[in-house]
Amino acid sequence: MTPEVFKQLAEEWIPFNKYVGIQALSIDEGNIVFEVPFREELIGDPLKRAIHGGVISMLADTAGGFAVWTALKDERARVSTIDLRIDYLLPGKQEPIRAHATLVRAGKTVGVADVRLFHPTEPSSTIATGKGVYAIRLHRAVERAESR
Amino acid sequence: MTPEVFKQLAEEWIPFNKYVGIQALSIDEGNIVFEVPFREELIGDPLKRAIHGGVISMLADTAGGFAVWTALKDERARVSTIDLRIDYLLPGKQEPIRAHATLVRAGKTVGVADVRLFHPTEPSSTIATGKGVYAIRLHRAVERAESR
Amino acid sequence: MTPEVFKQLAEEWIPFNKYVGIQALSIDEGNIVFEVPFREELIGDPLKRAIHGGVISMLADTAGGFAVWTALKDERARVSTIDLRIDYLLPGKQEPIRAHATLVRAGKTVGVADVRLFHPTEPSSTIATGKGVYAIRLHRAVERAESR
Amino acid sequence: MTPEVFKQLAEEWIPFNKYVGIQALSIDEGNIVFEVPFREELIGDPLKRAIHGGVISMLADTAGGFAVWTALKDERARVSTIDLRIDYLLPGKQEPIRAHATLVRAGKTVGVADVRLFHPTEPSSTIATGKGVYAIRLHRAVERAESR
Repeated sequence: MTPEVFKQLAEEWIPFNKYVGIQALSIDEGNIVFEVPFREELIGDPLKRAIHGGVISMLADTAGGFAVWTALKDERARVSTIDLRIDYLLPGKQEPIRAHATLVRAGKTVGVADVRLFHPTEPSSTIATGKGVYAIRLHRAVERAESR
Repeated sequence: MTPEVFKQLAEEWIPFNKYVGIQALSIDEGNIVFEVPFREELIGDPLKRAIHGGVISMLADTAGGFAVWTALKDERARVSTIDLRIDYLLPGKQEPIRAHATLVRAGKTVGVADVRLFHPTEPSSTIATGKGVYAIRLHRAVERAESR
Repeated sequence: MTPEVFKQLAEEWIPFNKYVGIQALSIDEGNIVFEVPFREELIGDPLKRAIHGGVISMLADTAGGFAVWTALKDERARVSTIDLRIDYLLPGKQEPIRAHATLVRAGKTVGVADVRLFHPTEPSSTIATGKGVYAIRLHRAVERAESR
Repeated sequence: MTPEVFKQLAEEWIPFNKYVGIQALSIDEGNIVFEVPFREELIGDPLKRAIHGGVISMLADTAGGFAVWTALKDERARVSTIDLRIDYLLPGKQEPIRAHATLVRAGKTVGVADVRLFHPTEPSSTIATGKGVYAIRLHRAVERAESR
């Protein structure tokens, strides 16, 4: 698939991504930059006005999944998250939050991606890091064709 | 704080919880049941129509945090997530998704909660499990008073 | 393979298991009980005389791997750890440490096991919990035969 | 404490470190390089002759703990592991295995360290990565003195 198709998938076709407002800034094989613009609805701590940890975890999960997905050779293959770990280092401010995901392991059946999250105004301050392990699955149709 | 106050906090005062639609079904000290009713916006895989992993991770994070929070003796203390791990076992269907969070470690400065997620129609099929580690922090005002 | 063969593998054929002193108390499909008797060499904190976290993590990793391995239908298949998480809840005392591992997800290519660690003298006090994700791989010979 | 004292602690005073054979190559504040020379006893897979995952996890745990410990200002403070995650990327060969641990979060009560593990002959091939969360605790004596 082309980067344009991946961008459409990431921003428009996945309903929860659209609901949260994910923007796909750059999509390369195994290298993803996604961003969520700040909105009041994304706040998790009304006193400190910090971004909800769930926004960070969903962004990390999605960016990591695309880092694996874009590196697959079979166009019809799909990824699904096996496990995800997020380490929260700094509270997220009322600013856009950006995720940079990198493929770190690309096996036949399992892919692993690292994600670093930060505010674009302060790119060297890491807000959170994520690591996702993703199962790689061939489409039914593909599997059937191959087993003949 | 009373369970009623915690319920208000969980459902209304935390903007992202409200945006996703979290309902606090039961709140006991160290034992939390939260639920998110199904809505189209929560879908993560438009083909399989499965719930987005990010809905599951935000629900686990929040439920786990309340399991720690409700067990604190100091009313003014706050929790913030240090790290969160989610293991995805089954795809989430187009149904409400429920989280049961249990406190497993209650230290002075760190609390740990386990979370099990499932559909209420099939409570024994675990969709995902989560484990969150939370920092426990006293309010500024409290700390100041204590250091005198 | 029979439980006796798995016991031999766990205790004798894996050199580091033997070096640390793992004993396989019971081996059932997807359900493993391993134990490490206490020895001075296993101490991690010479002041508090607590067992080294590394003994706990290696025991959890191994027990979890066998919980997946014993549940595989293909005798020649092998497991290798993709990722492991250990949560330390209580310091390990100068006593035998026991691990109970349970299979929680058995896919075609990925298995997941939960492990609970405790002292046999106080079985309800959990010292640590572990969760391992394991890749399932067919032997070369098997793969070749299948691809014909 | 001086780097020499930390080296003594890491290599000699912690019994399980000594049993496995940890060598402290360099110890700087928040930056640790530890190594385990290869020995037959450390093998985990007798067929592939790969190093046991437990050697890797114990080395990561210990190196990460020292990365936090060396950064503490109070000499009498101690660290203990809250949770540890290891991602295994490549099998460990019959060679020395080296761990580079870096402090990534230094709070008052919690420290986090990242660890990268590799063979010195091929330093850019990451065998495993680890992340440890450590509780920071003051000595009893210290706490008592402070609460007066």
